[in-house]
Amino acid sequence: MTTQGVQTGVIGVTGYAGAELARLLIRHPRLHGKPPVFAGRVDEKDAARGGTPLTEIHPQLAASNGNSHLKQEPFSWELLADRGVKVLFMATPHEQSREWAPEALKRGIRVIDLSGAWRLLDPANRAVYAFKDEGSDLAAQTQAQAVYGMPELYRAQIAGAKLIANPGCYSTSVILPLRPLVAAGLIDVESGIVADSKSGVSGAGKSPTAKTHFMYAADNLSAYGVFAHRHTGELLEQIGLKTGEIVFTPHLLPIPRGILSTIYVRFREPQTHGSIARVYGEFFANSPMVRIYEKGLPQIQYSVRTNYADIGFQLDASGRRAVIVSCLDNLLKGAAGQAVQNLNVMMGWPESEGLE
Amino acid sequence: MTTQGVQTGVIGVTGYAGAELARLLIRHPRLHGKPPVFAGRVDEKDAARGGTPLTEIHPQLAASNGNSHLKQEPFSWELLADRGVKVLFMATPHEQSREWAPEALKRGIRVIDLSGAWRLLDPANRAVYAFKDEGSDLAAQTQAQAVYGMPELYRAQIAGAKLIANPGCYSTSVILPLRPLVAAGLIDVESGIVADSKSGVSGAGKSPTAKTHFMYAADNLSAYGVFAHRHTGELLEQIGLKTGEIVFTPHLLPIPRGILSTIYVRFREPQTHGSIARVYGEFFANSPMVRIYEKGLPQIQYSVRTNYADIGFQLDASGRRAVIVSCLDNLLKGAAGQAVQNLNVMMGWPESEGLE
Amino acid sequence: MTTQGVQTGVIGVTGYAGAELARLLIRHPRLHGKPPVFAGRVDEKDAARGGTPLTEIHPQLAASNGNSHLKQEPFSWELLADRGVKVLFMATPHEQSREWAPEALKRGIRVIDLSGAWRLLDPANRAVYAFKDEGSDLAAQTQAQAVYGMPELYRAQIAGAKLIANPGCYSTSVILPLRPLVAAGLIDVESGIVADSKSGVSGAGKSPTAKTHFMYAADNLSAYGVFAHRHTGELLEQIGLKTGEIVFTPHLLPIPRGILSTIYVRFREPQTHGSIARVYGEFFANSPMVRIYEKGLPQIQYSVRTNYADIGFQLDASGRRAVIVSCLDNLLKGAAGQAVQNLNVMMGWPESEGLE
Amino acid sequence: MTTQGVQTGVIGVTGYAGAELARLLIRHPRLHGKPPVFAGRVDEKDAARGGTPLTEIHPQLAASNGNSHLKQEPFSWELLADRGVKVLFMATPHEQSREWAPEALKRGIRVIDLSGAWRLLDPANRAVYAFKDEGSDLAAQTQAQAVYGMPELYRAQIAGAKLIANPGCYSTSVILPLRPLVAAGLIDVESGIVADSKSGVSGAGKSPTAKTHFMYAADNLSAYGVFAHRHTGELLEQIGLKTGEIVFTPHLLPIPRGILSTIYVRFREPQTHGSIARVYGEFFANSPMVRIYEKGLPQIQYSVRTNYADIGFQLDASGRRAVIVSCLDNLLKGAAGQAVQNLNVMMGWPESEGLE
Repeated sequence: MTTQGVQTGVIGVTGYAGAELARLLIRHPRLHGKPPVFAGRVDEKDAARGGTPLTEIHPQLAASNGNSHLKQEPFSWELLADRGVKVLFMATPHEQSREWAPEALKRGIRVIDLSGAWRLLDPANRAVYAFKDEGSDLAAQTQAQAVYGMPELYRAQIAGAKLIANPGCYSTSVILPLRPLVAAGLIDVESGIVADSKSGVSGAGKSPTAKTHFMYAADNLSAYGVFAHRHTGELLEQIGLKTGEIVFTPHLLPIPRGILSTIYVRFREPQTHGSIARVYGEFFANSPMVRIYEKGLPQIQYSVRTNYADIGFQLDASGRRAVIVSCLDNLLKGAAGQAVQNLNVMMGWPESEGLE
Repeated sequence: MTTQGVQTGVIGVTGYAGAELARLLIRHPRLHGKPPVFAGRVDEKDAARGGTPLTEIHPQLAASNGNSHLKQEPFSWELLADRGVKVLFMATPHEQSREWAPEALKRGIRVIDLSGAWRLLDPANRAVYAFKDEGSDLAAQTQAQAVYGMPELYRAQIAGAKLIANPGCYSTSVILPLRPLVAAGLIDVESGIVADSKSGVSGAGKSPTAKTHFMYAADNLSAYGVFAHRHTGELLEQIGLKTGEIVFTPHLLPIPRGILSTIYVRFREPQTHGSIARVYGEFFANSPMVRIYEKGLPQIQYSVRTNYADIGFQLDASGRRAVIVSCLDNLLKGAAGQAVQNLNVMMGWPESEGLE
Repeated sequence: MTTQGVQTGVIGVTGYAGAELARLLIRHPRLHGKPPVFAGRVDEKDAARGGTPLTEIHPQLAASNGNSHLKQEPFSWELLADRGVKVLFMATPHEQSREWAPEALKRGIRVIDLSGAWRLLDPANRAVYAFKDEGSDLAAQTQAQAVYGMPELYRAQIAGAKLIANPGCYSTSVILPLRPLVAAGLIDVESGIVADSKSGVSGAGKSPTAKTHFMYAADNLSAYGVFAHRHTGELLEQIGLKTGEIVFTPHLLPIPRGILSTIYVRFREPQTHGSIARVYGEFFANSPMVRIYEKGLPQIQYSVRTNYADIGFQLDASGRRAVIVSCLDNLLKGAAGQAVQNLNVMMGWPESEGLE
Repeated sequence: MTTQGVQTGVIGVTGYAGAELARLLIRHPRLHGKPPVFAGRVDEKDAARGGTPLTEIHPQLAASNGNSHLKQEPFSWELLADRGVKVLFMATPHEQSREWAPEALKRGIRVIDLSGAWRLLDPANRAVYAFKDEGSDLAAQTQAQAVYGMPELYRAQIAGAKLIANPGCYSTSVILPLRPLVAAGLIDVESGIVADSKSGVSGAGKSPTAKTHFMYAADNLSAYGVFAHRHTGELLEQIGLKTGEIVFTPHLLPIPRGILSTIYVRFREPQTHGSIARVYGEFFANSPMVRIYEKGLPQIQYSVRTNYADIGFQLDASGRRAVIVSCLDNLLKGAAGQAVQNLNVMMGWPESEGLE
């Protein structure tokens, strides 16, 4: 098999998405015997022993049959070159991705970036990030090469892409159920779509903050980022909506992982369960990682720890309104899993390889 | 003080709302030395010792300074008569309330019913309960005497009421924030209101079921009763809406108690934070149990274990759309606390007595 | 490869351990294309369509690339014979295993029984189960063929066994850390060992009960079965202790899965960290599913969703006392995972095949 | 009533124990109309408006009938003097209590210190804190005035004390059940006592750290501080044990609040349930905040949000071994509640005033 294997690298393995990336890539059938090069900031003591053992960073990755030799090594471009890294996963802060992605491209390394750095086409939507290099030529050239990394929408472009902008977790849970219906012209977008999303705490990152404290999150629910969340731009651009046509409200759930989005739409013409199911069926015909519920609604427990995006829906008696529920694991289909799915597409491997 | 004290009774102390009722009534300053008569089904062995000790039913109610003599006694109308019960709380199944409330009224006992038996005026809305006595004269006469027990809306009527239909927990969390705005004519109801509600597991009752199993509820979130929840009728009748003007979706949260409702509205004319705050301020001027947030949004953790309904809101840049968030404790303001608030109003006591 | 594949069967796939068994066996590399035959009680409607689809019983098992054809079929011995089942997993109630295991053996089917039916050698220890067939010849003959299914202790016997008594979850978490030290004669057993164990709610089974209700388990911790838990007999027999030499107390943790046992021992002679590590190292030299912590202590989060048993320990300054902490996933190493590990040993496959 | 009221002060209201202290003192019947003076570090902006509103620090303390005027004011000794503070609660870091408590005493203010600063009599036990002023005359003089604030043990001394060292949360849960049995000479202390304790996350404090992150604590259990926890010295001194006679292991539970300690003892002579119950009954005859379970065992859910310490126990068949289970709320009986209980004793008020 000529497409077997490729040398990958991971920057930012220390976070939650990084841990999932490591797990997926280490076990990936096409990468057998070719574990990723993990690179990042390493303190002096660890640098002296060649890096920090991966199993010290993430004890749950320890396995009797290996892994013990894997280390996060001190990052340098030379390291990546020496090891022959061809595809680089960046689970890094936005600004770091803005700086390093162009450099990687220059060195001929393909990049799958999990940050928000390269997702947004419209400068107005990007404003919320206030990137330092906004407006520079390099940024513009880099952005022009970026493909939004949602295989269900951009499979062909991803195959040849140099830079993948891996989608936001909330965005994925809202774009996948809405794009087919909006593209088919079924939704009365002027009346306004509501996306009420709820996410587990891992979505807030690994840094201890007042909001990720157990005492804040447990036994609680809170809305945040109302009319102001950074994923809103992705919704507008990828679903194909104008400002004001969707209201998106994220909430912090007292669970480790998982997203459920409850989406409220009004149809231009009365629909039936069958007519909507048909639209989804056609749109996702070649998408192994989307599961459409024939009856019932998805729940977080059914998609968590998988790379599936689950979609279910229910219409009111008039056929004019629907409640759509989508679920996914924010660290997998919402981050690391989708990143590996993109790798599969880039390499011409089966899209769900190593993800089921 | 001539209004001091009244003999209360409680049927259905064994459930979660019953436990809160017991706690509130035992400690109520106006009922000092006059604990409720607890009555219900008691097995033979316990009947022989005069009833089941309350502290065996709810160990958390044990207190060194008393309570140990309190018992749930075998129910009979004679028991209530002998003890001089004047106000009866019924935390009973719907059908039992349909049967017993008329009997209590006949015997001159005022009733505060926590079930859904007497909340709905419109037979079409009541259909979802399929009451056995629907259509009977007695039911119609009883319904005619019922007052919807939300003091913020019906303070005057409650004061003189013989039968209080204590509101549903979800209903309370949606009606309180919406009624003032709809009544003021601000909301474009034709465009549709969305109420996305999330409740802790105690709302599902004490009977062990597949859905209240820890393994089902924990680390999970699920929507249910889409377009079909029994509280929808209350929303329509009490907010003043027609079918289709509101979509209400409840979700099961992995927490013991608390409700958060995220409500999406569109205004007829652009509004400001101040204009909305003014409407709420006037509407709830004399309502001690509603807290309007001047800034920020309520969270479940701030209202849980209190009788407050918390309301906050945020407008988009155009002033045409708002996200309103309301929180309350489903067992208190959503059930037992509101019931005691109704008692206070019925007795002419300060509305928040024993509730802060 | 001559050992490739064997036709397995599973009775009792509907429970939590059953779901894990299904997942492991479906994905097992040696069983590729040879999914288990799932058999059990099936209602009439489902029987008419050939059984209940596995993905209706456990939606999380749905996968785009298959599984949709898998069903739990109506159980009959003929079904198992027709399909050529050679190894039968029984995730069934104790009494059912007492009845069916002998029948399976008679029919030449090897059995891996996950219940407590065949674990105990000493009738006195078995008394706690009060088996209906206790004392019968058939029971005695069957018991004589049973091997306690802990590969770390009985690898050789398991290889040739006809009937495997898969260990209890708590038992596994206490036997593995204690057996090596007691066997080496290091522990002063007369002074008494304490095993304080804590388990997630899945250990209590799928039937909704008062104790598995979310409201009972969440935000709570409770001890139960004090001096009386059914796993105590396994501890005595497999560690090699007399009654009174160990006190074992299980607790119900407010988490879905995972066991942590904190074990307190006194040594006959002062020990060092190194001397204890050496004993463990030798004992588990060929045991891929046990991880000994060189420093630090295991936590539930590191072993959950794996088949590893994690063991760590700390000595006091005198070297006379130690606290040993062991962790495992009660549904994997404590049930289904260990069962598959036993299958691997029985078939001569690598012990950790399909488990990492 | 001559003992009515006293002006209290609270330093350190921002933490979890501080919030409970505020709640208890604001509602305390003897302090009606005399809320505490809250003092602490206040940023400039808030200082300009006279302090930080209490309801901004702890939104759950907002009440319609008041509290809105309460503020945490910038600390100074002059502030306390001006307001006539007579009793000062210090919910402060250990070192700050070491420094400020002597100063308060000098100024004639009685102190109830919730930190570990003044709990330990034996310098060897204190070593674990490494106090900066260890060995100074002032420290020695201050320590000499300190009374260990457990009313069940030192009621008389507390009444007249100038400085109360409020006990540790774990310590309270282990000392209360053990002291009566050890004092009665029943326990074979040479064989070793085991105290296996489990605490909710609030015990770890409000500062966000890796260990209080929701992702670390949730769905997890971990042991820590093995053979090294700072509360061990309290156990030795207050139970009356020598080093090595008790092994104490704390664990971090995935719940907000509550402690359960499982305690393993061996008796010198066989005991009965009745003989042990009698010892407890006599010891706690005048202790309203201790509940001895006649049958069954306490659980965290029954004592959480109360000031009770619950104790239950079970003996083995020989009467030589017992498992004792104690439960309490770490923020109440384990901190703020016990502090108020001490205030009650100091003022000659009923010991449980404002605590039931």
